[in-house]
Amino acid sequence: MPGEKEKCMKVTAKTVADFTKGELIGNPDIEITDVSKIEEGKKGSLAFLANPKYEKYLYNTEASVVLINKDFQINGTVNATLIRVDNAYDAFTSLLELYTKMVPEKKGIEQPSYVDPSAKLGENVYIGAFSYIGPGVTIGNNAKIYPQVYIGDYTQVNDNTIVFPGVKIYHGCYIGHSCVIHSGVVIGGDGFGFVQQPDQQYRKIPQVGNVVIEDNVEIGANTTIDRATMGSTIIRKGAKFDNLIQIGHNVEVGENTVIVSQAGIAGSTKVGSNCQLGGQVGLAGHLKIGDNVKIGAQSGVSNNLKDGETVLGSPAFDVSRQVKAMITYKSLPEMSRRIAELEKELKKLTEKNKGE
Amino acid sequence: MPGEKEKCMKVTAKTVADFTKGELIGNPDIEITDVSKIEEGKKGSLAFLANPKYEKYLYNTEASVVLINKDFQINGTVNATLIRVDNAYDAFTSLLELYTKMVPEKKGIEQPSYVDPSAKLGENVYIGAFSYIGPGVTIGNNAKIYPQVYIGDYTQVNDNTIVFPGVKIYHGCYIGHSCVIHSGVVIGGDGFGFVQQPDQQYRKIPQVGNVVIEDNVEIGANTTIDRATMGSTIIRKGAKFDNLIQIGHNVEVGENTVIVSQAGIAGSTKVGSNCQLGGQVGLAGHLKIGDNVKIGAQSGVSNNLKDGETVLGSPAFDVSRQVKAMITYKSLPEMSRRIAELEKELKKLTEKNKGE
Amino acid sequence: MPGEKEKCMKVTAKTVADFTKGELIGNPDIEITDVSKIEEGKKGSLAFLANPKYEKYLYNTEASVVLINKDFQINGTVNATLIRVDNAYDAFTSLLELYTKMVPEKKGIEQPSYVDPSAKLGENVYIGAFSYIGPGVTIGNNAKIYPQVYIGDYTQVNDNTIVFPGVKIYHGCYIGHSCVIHSGVVIGGDGFGFVQQPDQQYRKIPQVGNVVIEDNVEIGANTTIDRATMGSTIIRKGAKFDNLIQIGHNVEVGENTVIVSQAGIAGSTKVGSNCQLGGQVGLAGHLKIGDNVKIGAQSGVSNNLKDGETVLGSPAFDVSRQVKAMITYKSLPEMSRRIAELEKELKKLTEKNKGE
Repeated sequence: MPGEKEKCMKVTAKTVADFTKGELIGNPDIEITDVSKIEEGKKGSLAFLANPKYEKYLYNTEASVVLINKDFQINGTVNATLIRVDNAYDAFTSLLELYTKMVPEKKGIEQPSYVDPSAKLGENVYIGAFSYIGPGVTIGNNAKIYPQVYIGDYTQVNDNTIVFPGVKIYHGCYIGHSCVIHSGVVIGGDGFGFVQQPDQQYRKIPQVGNVVIEDNVEIGANTTIDRATMGSTIIRKGAKFDNLIQIGHNVEVGENTVIVSQAGIAGSTKVGSNCQLGGQVGLAGHLKIGDNVKIGAQSGVSNNLKDGETVLGSPAFDVSRQVKAMITYKSLPEMSRRIAELEKELKKLTEKNKGE
Repeated sequence: MPGEKEKCMKVTAKTVADFTKGELIGNPDIEITDVSKIEEGKKGSLAFLANPKYEKYLYNTEASVVLINKDFQINGTVNATLIRVDNAYDAFTSLLELYTKMVPEKKGIEQPSYVDPSAKLGENVYIGAFSYIGPGVTIGNNAKIYPQVYIGDYTQVNDNTIVFPGVKIYHGCYIGHSCVIHSGVVIGGDGFGFVQQPDQQYRKIPQVGNVVIEDNVEIGANTTIDRATMGSTIIRKGAKFDNLIQIGHNVEVGENTVIVSQAGIAGSTKVGSNCQLGGQVGLAGHLKIGDNVKIGAQSGVSNNLKDGETVLGSPAFDVSRQVKAMITYKSLPEMSRRIAELEKELKKLTEKNKGE
Repeated sequence: MPGEKEKCMKVTAKTVADFTKGELIGNPDIEITDVSKIEEGKKGSLAFLANPKYEKYLYNTEASVVLINKDFQINGTVNATLIRVDNAYDAFTSLLELYTKMVPEKKGIEQPSYVDPSAKLGENVYIGAFSYIGPGVTIGNNAKIYPQVYIGDYTQVNDNTIVFPGVKIYHGCYIGHSCVIHSGVVIGGDGFGFVQQPDQQYRKIPQVGNVVIEDNVEIGANTTIDRATMGSTIIRKGAKFDNLIQIGHNVEVGENTVIVSQAGIAGSTKVGSNCQLGGQVGLAGHLKIGDNVKIGAQSGVSNNLKDGETVLGSPAFDVSRQVKAMITYKSLPEMSRRIAELEKELKKLTEKNKGE
């Protein structure tokens, strides 16, 4: 019943062996119509085995074809056709990349869409129906703007970037080359800046900066990245964001930093390169987080972190200390009883001593 | 001032009594123009009393008509017209269901909209303006696709399902019968899968699976459900999701499981049937959560849970133990002082003993 | 490279001095083309100095013009042109307000858009392309409805309110005057109300209430505010919400209350005026939170709070007590060892005493 997908793959084992420069053992003509994990293999599917932990599945998988490392020692009967390659995982990933490219490419300008006469569109772009390209916008070559996207005045989207349906990018922002922006992302909304007046009402601080997303950044669905009060909120090249993340105004996120879903970074905090932020992490504002920092899921960080630190907890501190505290925490009621017992015993002893 | 709503209700107490097969006590001709809680009753409103805890409101409510259980003992003066029924709560809910159906039904294909010639539309469908129905899409009978919705290539939406404005469903996904998908939901965005290369840059793992939503599932606003790397992310029938929830790739959520807003489930975790996940809960990846599991709000779960477990906290463990630990935690500073005091006293005593 | 923005500012120092009624010291003809923080000043930028902590930047900023308080004592050489005013911060904010107003105003009804014949549009409104204005909707004077917005049947949006691209407002809701609603916000989706039936399946409780947003409210990107089961979910005037916040059905938020991103409030909870909720805070349902309450980031609140309370933690309690508990928590493993040591010592002593 479920999961009837477009049928765009239909190749033989031989084609895959040729593409991967692998050695084929079995039926070269067997057809591949899908890909799967080895433990979920079905007739017609191509799987791979890289991690020896999964070896057992090799002998009972229903996958038609399995990619396997050249030097892998087989210790049982295999029904699937095998293709031996230098690195099964890499070869499989390359095939997946090829597979995704086999879907017919979206191209051209669908109607109705709104492209301001002053906008500049590169070569070979896709502009989906109901998308809005404002005045002064630049769209780079081969960029794909899916339907129902909004690109505000003077924003620049560079070559090969994919903007999925319904993304909203406010005016004056910059999106680099080869970025991927998923549905529902909002880039360039106003930073959260207000000043309370004597009458308790808040006066809005105009947010006149912008957002700069460098090259090769991927941003997950419904994530929000606020524009700077002045200057730019900056996401450096190669950063990867999951879904539903909040990035406050004037934040900077370093190169190749990875942020898992539902994490939030408050205004003006700078995060270094190659960091990993777990899911639902919260970072207070105006912090400086070094490079290669790891922050465990659900942590709350309210102080600066040095290069290479790994922290956990809310409030977060060094992970090994935190893990010990978490373990001890579980026996808190017992600890409390032991203290009460000690007090009782000590009192008895003290009184006994006095009495003597 | 506020809250001027469409006026689509105008019935008499008698009509309600007839519909609910109830016994009317009071004015059969009194007009009902709204519904309300009994404690917020106003002239013209219909309320109900099911929980005896609210009895006091029966004697001072301004509601014109109150539904009440047949066997309810009245101990005071009631101004409202009463309708006595077997089960006041059920009868009231049925009336609300009727009320929501009284709104004129959306039907037909509004223009401009984009329906690919290869898409198949069932009978009696609604396609709102600015919606995009891609190639190979199937929309079932009586389905309602509100304005500004995106349904990607080859996705299937089944009979009687309602897709509210602005929902984005990527290609190749499956949505069952009688589902309700609220505004801003993103289904089928890429799972968060990257492999770090030796040069620190991340290589994207293509996400070639899909999302399968079974029948009678409701999904709250701005929730995101990622497509599987391979295979399917699956939401089983009858599951109910609140707003702003994150579901990672290859996750499975069991039948009739309820998830409260802002919770997140990381990749490949399987959650059983009839579970309840509180608000802002986080589940790590690759876990197995049994059936009938309850997870308290803001909990962080990083290990498997058996059928019927109830856990709380971050990290989460058994709720009764957690509650005791939470209570003890509040007196931690005092515990610390007591330990210091014990050490002092013991030292004194020990020295005294030595001295003897 | 990045951040090429629309060029809409080009004024002289003299113009700024005239506007702010300030005293100009330096070159009146120097051109201002941007604004910046004083520590990030560049040729052509206007900055300000209000906080004496930043004084050192005054002597090395590259900003062309700096606004400074009349009574500020200068203790070094300043290259920038200075403008002395009564209150540099206020003057700068006023200039930013002016700056944002210098962007050409969006006006008129862009095509294609969908405006139901029964909708009433005020004077001087902007309706962006691909927006959907349903039957019976009222849009006030000077309101701006950006592209791809959905406004459901009979909803009312009042004068001077700005609704950014892609906002979805369900039927029958009320939005006050001078509100700002950012992209991706969903207002009026169904509250999360279901009753489990004996067969484990859930029956939906129809949500027939609405949402009322009073005047001067600002709502950040991708925030969701559910409609009431009956009656109204109410956001009082002057409240300010950040991004990705969840507001459950029948919640009320008081005047000038500020909520930071990713916080969530469960159904029927009432929050008072002038409160501050930190990021990722969670409030359970059916609570009463007083006025002037402060709740620290990531806190979880499951009980009522009185006027003026400040709480922190999950579960949350009085902040000063919490901070002490958090500090002690870090040394839990050490405390545990000290208890074990005490037990050992006491046992020795007790035995020695017995032996005597």
